[in-house]
Amino acid sequence: MFFASDNSGPVPQAVLDALAEANQGYTLGYGADALMEEVRQRVRDVFEAPEAAVYLTATGTSANSLVLATLVNPYDTIFCSPVAHIEEDECNAPEFYTGGAKLTLVPGSDRIDPEALSRCIVSRAAGRVHGPQPGALSLTQVTEMGNVYSLDELRALCAVAKAHEIPVHLDGARFANAIVSLGCTPAEMTWKAGVDVAVFGGTKNGLMGVEAVVFFDPAHAWEFELRRKRGGHLFSKHRYLSAQMAAYLRDDLWLSLAQRANANTARLLDGVRASNRVEIVNDVTANMIFFDAPRDLHQALRRGGAVYAISGGSVDEGPADGILQGRLVCDWSMPEENIDAFVSLLNRL
Amino acid sequence: MFFASDNSGPVPQAVLDALAEANQGYTLGYGADALMEEVRQRVRDVFEAPEAAVYLTATGTSANSLVLATLVNPYDTIFCSPVAHIEEDECNAPEFYTGGAKLTLVPGSDRIDPEALSRCIVSRAAGRVHGPQPGALSLTQVTEMGNVYSLDELRALCAVAKAHEIPVHLDGARFANAIVSLGCTPAEMTWKAGVDVAVFGGTKNGLMGVEAVVFFDPAHAWEFELRRKRGGHLFSKHRYLSAQMAAYLRDDLWLSLAQRANANTARLLDGVRASNRVEIVNDVTANMIFFDAPRDLHQALRRGGAVYAISGGSVDEGPADGILQGRLVCDWSMPEENIDAFVSLLNRL
Amino acid sequence: MFFASDNSGPVPQAVLDALAEANQGYTLGYGADALMEEVRQRVRDVFEAPEAAVYLTATGTSANSLVLATLVNPYDTIFCSPVAHIEEDECNAPEFYTGGAKLTLVPGSDRIDPEALSRCIVSRAAGRVHGPQPGALSLTQVTEMGNVYSLDELRALCAVAKAHEIPVHLDGARFANAIVSLGCTPAEMTWKAGVDVAVFGGTKNGLMGVEAVVFFDPAHAWEFELRRKRGGHLFSKHRYLSAQMAAYLRDDLWLSLAQRANANTARLLDGVRASNRVEIVNDVTANMIFFDAPRDLHQALRRGGAVYAISGGSVDEGPADGILQGRLVCDWSMPEENIDAFVSLLNRL
Amino acid sequence: MFFASDNSGPVPQAVLDALAEANQGYTLGYGADALMEEVRQRVRDVFEAPEAAVYLTATGTSANSLVLATLVNPYDTIFCSPVAHIEEDECNAPEFYTGGAKLTLVPGSDRIDPEALSRCIVSRAAGRVHGPQPGALSLTQVTEMGNVYSLDELRALCAVAKAHEIPVHLDGARFANAIVSLGCTPAEMTWKAGVDVAVFGGTKNGLMGVEAVVFFDPAHAWEFELRRKRGGHLFSKHRYLSAQMAAYLRDDLWLSLAQRANANTARLLDGVRASNRVEIVNDVTANMIFFDAPRDLHQALRRGGAVYAISGGSVDEGPADGILQGRLVCDWSMPEENIDAFVSLLNRL
Repeated sequence: MFFASDNSGPVPQAVLDALAEANQGYTLGYGADALMEEVRQRVRDVFEAPEAAVYLTATGTSANSLVLATLVNPYDTIFCSPVAHIEEDECNAPEFYTGGAKLTLVPGSDRIDPEALSRCIVSRAAGRVHGPQPGALSLTQVTEMGNVYSLDELRALCAVAKAHEIPVHLDGARFANAIVSLGCTPAEMTWKAGVDVAVFGGTKNGLMGVEAVVFFDPAHAWEFELRRKRGGHLFSKHRYLSAQMAAYLRDDLWLSLAQRANANTARLLDGVRASNRVEIVNDVTANMIFFDAPRDLHQALRRGGAVYAISGGSVDEGPADGILQGRLVCDWSMPEENIDAFVSLLNRL
Repeated sequence: MFFASDNSGPVPQAVLDALAEANQGYTLGYGADALMEEVRQRVRDVFEAPEAAVYLTATGTSANSLVLATLVNPYDTIFCSPVAHIEEDECNAPEFYTGGAKLTLVPGSDRIDPEALSRCIVSRAAGRVHGPQPGALSLTQVTEMGNVYSLDELRALCAVAKAHEIPVHLDGARFANAIVSLGCTPAEMTWKAGVDVAVFGGTKNGLMGVEAVVFFDPAHAWEFELRRKRGGHLFSKHRYLSAQMAAYLRDDLWLSLAQRANANTARLLDGVRASNRVEIVNDVTANMIFFDAPRDLHQALRRGGAVYAISGGSVDEGPADGILQGRLVCDWSMPEENIDAFVSLLNRL
Repeated sequence: MFFASDNSGPVPQAVLDALAEANQGYTLGYGADALMEEVRQRVRDVFEAPEAAVYLTATGTSANSLVLATLVNPYDTIFCSPVAHIEEDECNAPEFYTGGAKLTLVPGSDRIDPEALSRCIVSRAAGRVHGPQPGALSLTQVTEMGNVYSLDELRALCAVAKAHEIPVHLDGARFANAIVSLGCTPAEMTWKAGVDVAVFGGTKNGLMGVEAVVFFDPAHAWEFELRRKRGGHLFSKHRYLSAQMAAYLRDDLWLSLAQRANANTARLLDGVRASNRVEIVNDVTANMIFFDAPRDLHQALRRGGAVYAISGGSVDEGPADGILQGRLVCDWSMPEENIDAFVSLLNRL
Repeated sequence: MFFASDNSGPVPQAVLDALAEANQGYTLGYGADALMEEVRQRVRDVFEAPEAAVYLTATGTSANSLVLATLVNPYDTIFCSPVAHIEEDECNAPEFYTGGAKLTLVPGSDRIDPEALSRCIVSRAAGRVHGPQPGALSLTQVTEMGNVYSLDELRALCAVAKAHEIPVHLDGARFANAIVSLGCTPAEMTWKAGVDVAVFGGTKNGLMGVEAVVFFDPAHAWEFELRRKRGGHLFSKHRYLSAQMAAYLRDDLWLSLAQRANANTARLLDGVRASNRVEIVNDVTANMIFFDAPRDLHQALRRGGAVYAISGGSVDEGPADGILQGRLVCDWSMPEENIDAFVSLLNRL
């Protein structure tokens, strides 16, 4: 019963097959392989963006940080939510790659509120030399709390950014899960809503470690290439990244995998809700469930073999009725019996 | 006839098999996978260094830059050869990762001369606040010109570094080729000679993109981990790096691959020498041949289907007898018929 | 009626005299001048810290940023108040100098609460590779809102930092005003309370642009010197900085100046309070008064010739009864007639 | 007999007077003072550049580094001479401010040769992602070896830069000495020759610590302002920088001071040449004399009270006839009796 993360499971056989297939003969490196040409074209098709510049990196942190470094100056600030991955989980990678730009946390929750954003941008007064300049808006879809912005919400946030003339970055580590949740097109969730650069994540949805970066305006493409190289993120044997992403895009594998992950989560949610043992705290429409429960319940789940992240304090020490927050994540590969076993365990407690 | 690089060929089947084998069930990410424990132990055995801290990254540039950033301060300078990869081919990655440390090029060739090194360190006077401080010595083995330092040479260079109290980094992108060339142990070529941190390259010798970083003194291990994360080089699905490196180390696969690469090169060298058509300019004991030849010979080789790097000017334009330098690289997978075809072509011209 | 800042007025004659006196003959540069030796000794005496390392820079931003860069690693985070000068008014200088360390804003006001600090440090879990590591605590005394931490408050905050093994930086742009307010010794307000490095500001208290940096533990002194040089903050003609600071320290000039500034502010406060026209929002014990007042009152004060900073919205546009915040600052040189004129104006409105 | 540097002497009385005169009442800070408006206009007049953006900083290192950071990207390289101040004497400040750009040393001497420069730029192939991109050319006038580029030489170097589409920075720490040496106008030595940004040094020619940065194209002006603030180089009490530079520009004080420095050096040169005791190794047309002499002569000069920089080895230890290089620098304030005393001493030995 391993619900700790969507980066803990295996990759589908198609990805292994694609690696084996790509493993033939000699080819040019550094992104000049033929498979990358296929990837580039397919990504453009998927996003209905025939001019888009498309690149691959192997980690989400590098994808996000390289994009932000391309979008902002070192004397700028990036607006994001207080629980953004770039703020909490990247060990200052955005500050490193941007040369010291600042993150400004928009007060509120994981879902940025447009009015709060607007006030926040105004507070970093553009044109005032003493403070950082407004640089970019960074959104996460699915958010770090498992919520999904509606298209209207995305449009409203991008409109605020545009009104202040700053570009929008979309951290799409769970891009596919959001698409499945919203039932919209990638174009609708990105450039049609006002997003300038999207990270189209593969790693959390079935690849070994590949993210596609999509610049809808290719003006910054060459700068991105240089920054990727300078960051040590340009692969000499690039075909092994290309092959994975190509497999991901063929026959909409990326969508199938996310459908499975979201469906697994819905099944889990049904069981958890029916148990009436815990309080669900997020809108579960993608592949993560956040719930509050007393410490002793978490302890019992752990003892029963459930593995998942818990925050808010020590699981082992503290009052039995202290409330801690659990996070359950399902990926595409989660066996139904694991889901059912967890629900059974919960009901037994 | 593809002799352009040792990063252009396929990986051995054992690596694909290892990926498939690792692709089972759930596992902890970020280096906490069981395979990494195997890797760590095997690397320590191979290097006879039971205390060593061992890490994986996916590119040579990241491995080198992260190590250098761990070894030096931003106000320091790194001593290297004028043709070092870190100087010419990493788009300022060392400067980026170190926060702006300087590279000081020791006058001379790809093989640093100990006396020149000593003068160079003295010229960057330690304790003088106006100039950068001596920070580290960076050696490349096999060098970028295909030469191999002898153990005596390595010891002499490390002794100079030690005399000035700076640590030694070994860029071992072709570590295995050097070991095969010298017929020595990894310990002899590293810590026994005075090397403090070695990059044990896998990418140019049969892996998809994995390098092991070996700190013989683990004092800086935690700092390295934080810098790796901050650089976006910590893989969530780390098992796919571990699996490759584990396969590489099992049954001395790494040595077998390098033996084949070096043997391929020796076969090519024999043919090229016998042709008497070009001038070999390096000591060919590993897997690279550098040779001088007139422009029209290079043109004819290209027309004949040979692919390899040429430097010193335009191949297409200029006097027919202008001398340009060619580089022929063989990896483990180079078919003998390709080698023989190249030699035949050369002899026909 | 210029109350905009304590960096807007003239310097006392003693400073000009000191410059003229120092302007004789040849002397060594870069801090090797004899006057710097006097400064170093006097600072040590003033702080009862015979081992302290003492340096001068010309701006507060450089002093703060260089200190922080010396104290923390680029993968660390610095804890400070949400309105700290290093967060709002230094255009990312701390991020720049530290190589990309992050500022973590302790929720609350300008005066950091020890419990909030403790929770905040815990939330940046030391030893977790994904997030920044706790790096340092930065306190501002006098705070940016004109408040003064008591010695007990300082001790409690430093104790929290020490419990988490992070050092404490004191931004003392208005150090002297705080000393006068508290009636304590510099030692009591710094190392005896747990401060590791203090910036002893001169610029806002009568110098042209000189701040002293005091490391109570000289272990990092040489690193600071290199960082200062690398930042372009080491003056060749250092004697002109030394001369100012020497004059500042002679005959307790620094205390006299701050006493005058604080006394001017107290006189202004008396008048403003008696007027009953505005609401004072900070504890006025140093040299800044923050007050809330409706927009039309601010407009009338401006028309009447009062110059001071106003925040919270446009002075010119908006409802007449909208509340905006004003800041009145007095330096040592503020003429009493200006103070009285402002109070008269306020009473007339 | 102090010939160690032109940053060791006093400032002229006019500078002290200007400080005293500026020390009246309240004024806006951060460059918004009225004196800065005068400075801006006078600099534009002096350079015949009515559109130029003009800024002040307090040190040459900050001026050079901030300009370079404004001109190049972190993945670029700056071409300079092997003895450039930015390479040898700024403790990696250019690398720091540019975010890790590399310096590429054009082989040769202090005076860059246009052909060598051209080859060097070509070797850093623009458009090749693996290496740094050509970013800027940095020239020093007067060079660090006391030589002065002719206008033809400057034009030829700038033409090479323009042909490769990179901008030109002029490090003019001794700008005035060069103007006096060449007898040309500031416009001829800068934008008319192809220089894009000039540092017009004041510190080595009679100010306490003020350099003017002159962007002939103001496109990057705002970026420079933000970088200056971020570097901690924006002075709150800016009037004290403005006042010095204003005095420097009034009545051509800057030219008079440089004429005196150069004349002092010419007088010293005459005496040294006539002595026939040492070998002059540079073209002495500005204010520095470099000469070779045996160790025992240097020792005797030192014993006789002469203070100057010596390079090439230890003065105290080594063979008596070992050749070391001495550097004699005269500033505007050098008393003629000191010059004559040095010559007498030399003749006596």
